[in-house]
Amino acid sequence: MTESPLGQRAGREPAPTGVSGASLNGQAGAPGSPLGLHRVLEPAGVLPQAAWRLDARPAIWPDEVRITVERLNLDAASFRQLHEANDGHPDRIRTSVLEIVRTRGKMQNPVTGSGGMLTGVVDEIGPDSPLGLCAGDKIATLVSLSLTPLVITDALVRWDGRSEQVPCTGHAILFGRSIAARLPDDMTAELALSVMDVCGAPALTHRVVSARQGERPTVAIIGAAGKSGSLSAAAARRAGAATVVGVVPHDAEASILRAAKAGDGECGLVDHVVIADARDPVGVSSAIQRAAGGPADVTVVCVDVPGCEGGAILATAQGGTVIFFSMATSFTAAALGAEGVAADVTMLVGNGYVPGHAELAMDLIRTEPGVRGMFQRRITDHQE
Amino acid sequence: MTESPLGQRAGREPAPTGVSGASLNGQAGAPGSPLGLHRVLEPAGVLPQAAWRLDARPAIWPDEVRITVERLNLDAASFRQLHEANDGHPDRIRTSVLEIVRTRGKMQNPVTGSGGMLTGVVDEIGPDSPLGLCAGDKIATLVSLSLTPLVITDALVRWDGRSEQVPCTGHAILFGRSIAARLPDDMTAELALSVMDVCGAPALTHRVVSARQGERPTVAIIGAAGKSGSLSAAAARRAGAATVVGVVPHDAEASILRAAKAGDGECGLVDHVVIADARDPVGVSSAIQRAAGGPADVTVVCVDVPGCEGGAILATAQGGTVIFFSMATSFTAAALGAEGVAADVTMLVGNGYVPGHAELAMDLIRTEPGVRGMFQRRITDHQE
Repeated sequence: MTESPLGQRAGREPAPTGVSGASLNGQAGAPGSPLGLHRVLEPAGVLPQAAWRLDARPAIWPDEVRITVERLNLDAASFRQLHEANDGHPDRIRTSVLEIVRTRGKMQNPVTGSGGMLTGVVDEIGPDSPLGLCAGDKIATLVSLSLTPLVITDALVRWDGRSEQVPCTGHAILFGRSIAARLPDDMTAELALSVMDVCGAPALTHRVVSARQGERPTVAIIGAAGKSGSLSAAAARRAGAATVVGVVPHDAEASILRAAKAGDGECGLVDHVVIADARDPVGVSSAIQRAAGGPADVTVVCVDVPGCEGGAILATAQGGTVIFFSMATSFTAAALGAEGVAADVTMLVGNGYVPGHAELAMDLIRTEPGVRGMFQRRITDHQE
Repeated sequence: MTESPLGQRAGREPAPTGVSGASLNGQAGAPGSPLGLHRVLEPAGVLPQAAWRLDARPAIWPDEVRITVERLNLDAASFRQLHEANDGHPDRIRTSVLEIVRTRGKMQNPVTGSGGMLTGVVDEIGPDSPLGLCAGDKIATLVSLSLTPLVITDALVRWDGRSEQVPCTGHAILFGRSIAARLPDDMTAELALSVMDVCGAPALTHRVVSARQGERPTVAIIGAAGKSGSLSAAAARRAGAATVVGVVPHDAEASILRAAKAGDGECGLVDHVVIADARDPVGVSSAIQRAAGGPADVTVVCVDVPGCEGGAILATAQGGTVIFFSMATSFTAAALGAEGVAADVTMLVGNGYVPGHAELAMDLIRTEPGVRGMFQRRITDHQE
C-alpha cells in the first residue's frame, strides 16, 4: 500500500472520468494518486490534508468514489472554535462553514486544522476503486473532512447552526486510500456517525491496554463522560484493565457517568468517578491517585480543551503511557512537560486510524448499554 | 516519586532558606514542592513549565540547589525564532533574551514555548536536596530552561548573539525533582552541553529500535547530520538496526554525513544518505523507500522546521513507529495526517527524559568519532 503512491508520482495530473463515465479531458483511464495528490490545487505537492485548497469537482478519477452527502459531523474542537469566533450566532456559524467549504474545497477549520466526517450514499464508483463499495450503499467516511473534497449545494438550510451535526446536501470524493464504513441497519445514521467519528480512540486504547494485560493495569480516562472517553473506558475494561478511573469536570457529568452500567450490568462503566479540572495538573493527578490508590498505568486524554498535558503526565506512573486524543493537545507542552518532571512516560499521538476501529466501536455501542445511553442522550439533547 | 508532590500540596508557600542557610521569612525548614510549585508566581496552580512568571530569587528552599550559571544553550527552535523576529540583529536578539528572562524569571521563548539548558557550578545545596550534588560540581541541567528559575546578572556582554550557545553570568535554581548531570572531564563544557541538550533523542530511539531488534529493522533519520539526528543514528545502529537511512536537505550536509564513520571504523554512520526536502511528503518518503528498498520500520524526525509530519508518516511501514523530536511538530498535523492516509503507525511525542539518557549520549560521543566530529565542527563553525 505504501508503494503505490510513489509509483504513480509521475502521473500527477491524471484524468478524471466523467460523471457518467465519460472522460472530461481526453485522458480517460489515467490513474489518480491513491492519496489524492491529483486533487491538490495549492500549495502544489502537499498532501490533501495539508493543502489550502482542493479540486472538489464531481467528475471522478478511475480509483475514486463520489458520495451524495447527507450529513456532516464537525469535529468538537472545530465546532467549538466556530461557535466562539461567531459569539454563538447560528447564522454566522453557518456562513462561516459555507465560506470555508467554498474557498477550500473541503471542510477544514483554518484555525484548528481539524475537520470531522460525513455520511451519505455512494453515487458513482470508479472502475479501479479498491474500497469495495456499491452504488446505493449508505456509508460514513472514516478519513477526516480536512482532506475530503466537498461541495455543498443546499446552503445548509436544514442546519440550525447549534450543534456539530450538520444536515447537508452536496457531494464528496473518496480516494483510493480513503476509508469508509457501511452504516449499520440497527441504529440511526446519527448514532452511527457519532460513534464512528471517535472510533480511533477506543481502538488505540484497547491496543495499549491489551499490551499490559498481564499487569492488571489501572487506566484513567480524562473526559470519561464524552464520546471518545466513554467508548475508551469500555474498551479499556474489555482489554483487561483492572481499575478504570473516569475524570469529569462537574457534578452533572459525574451523575451521568455514575449511572452508566458496564455491558455485564454488574458494575459501572468505570470503577471510580472523580471530579477535577483537567487543566489543574496537581488537582487532577491527585484526584486520580486518591481514587485508584496510586498513579495510572495508562492515561487517556479525551477532553478538547488546551492545557491538559501536565495533569495527564503527572497522573501516570513511571513506565506508563499517555494517549492524547484531544485535538487541543500541544506537542511542545507534552514534550517539555514530561521532561520537566522527569517523567519516563510513553506519550502517543492519538492516531485516528487503527485497523478494525469501526468494527470495535460498533461492537462496543451494541454491547454496552451504558455507553449507548450516553451517546443517545447527547443526540437527544441536541434535538431539544 | 509521584506521591511526594501531592503530599506537599498543602505547603504551597514554604519558606526558602537564606543564601547562607538563614531563613528569609521565619519558616525555615518548610519543604518546597519537588515540582517547584512554590516558585510559580502566575498563573497560580500551574506547573513551572506552564507558568508565565517564576520567582527566581536566589534564596533556596530546603530541597533546592542554586547554580552559578556559566552558559545557556538555547534550543534550536527558540533561537531560530529569535533570529527571525529580530532580522538577525545580534543586539536585538540579546535584548530579547534579557527581556524574556527579566519578565518571566526563566528563559522560555513565549512564541515557541521552548527553552534549552545551561551549565554552571553548584553554589548552594539545600539540606533536603535528593539530587546528590556537591558544592563546586560542574554540571549541566537536564530539565528545560522553560521551567528553570533564572536571573542574568552580566547583561550577556560576552554573547555575540549569533549562536544558541550563550556565555552568561547569573544564577539558576534546581528543584527536588529536577535532573542534572556532572560535566565529564574528557571534553569541553561546550561539547558536553551540546550533547546533553539532545540526549533524550538517542535514548528513546535506542529503546524503540531495541524493542524491534529481532526484526532487523530499517530506521530512517530525518535530519541525520544534526545534533539529535547524528546521535540517534548511532543509537539506532547500536540498538540493532539493520539499515540506517539518513535524510539531509542539501549537498553540504550530505558530504558531512557521508564522511562520518561508525564507531568500528568499518562502515558509515548511516548506510544510505539521501537528499530530500522533509516538508515534501511524497519526495521524502519516495527517497527513503528507494534507498532502503522499502519503507522504514522506525522513522525519527529531528529537523526543527514545521511541516515534516506527512513525509515521516508516509515513509513508515504499516505497524511501524514515528518518533517526533522536533519542537516544530504539529500535534494536529500528525494525528490527522496518519488518519488521512490510513497509516497504522505508532506516533511518539519525543520525551526529553529517558532514564540513563545522559550516560548513553556521552558514551556514544566517546565511541563514535563520526558523531563527535560533527558536533565539533558545529561548535567550531560558531566560533569562526
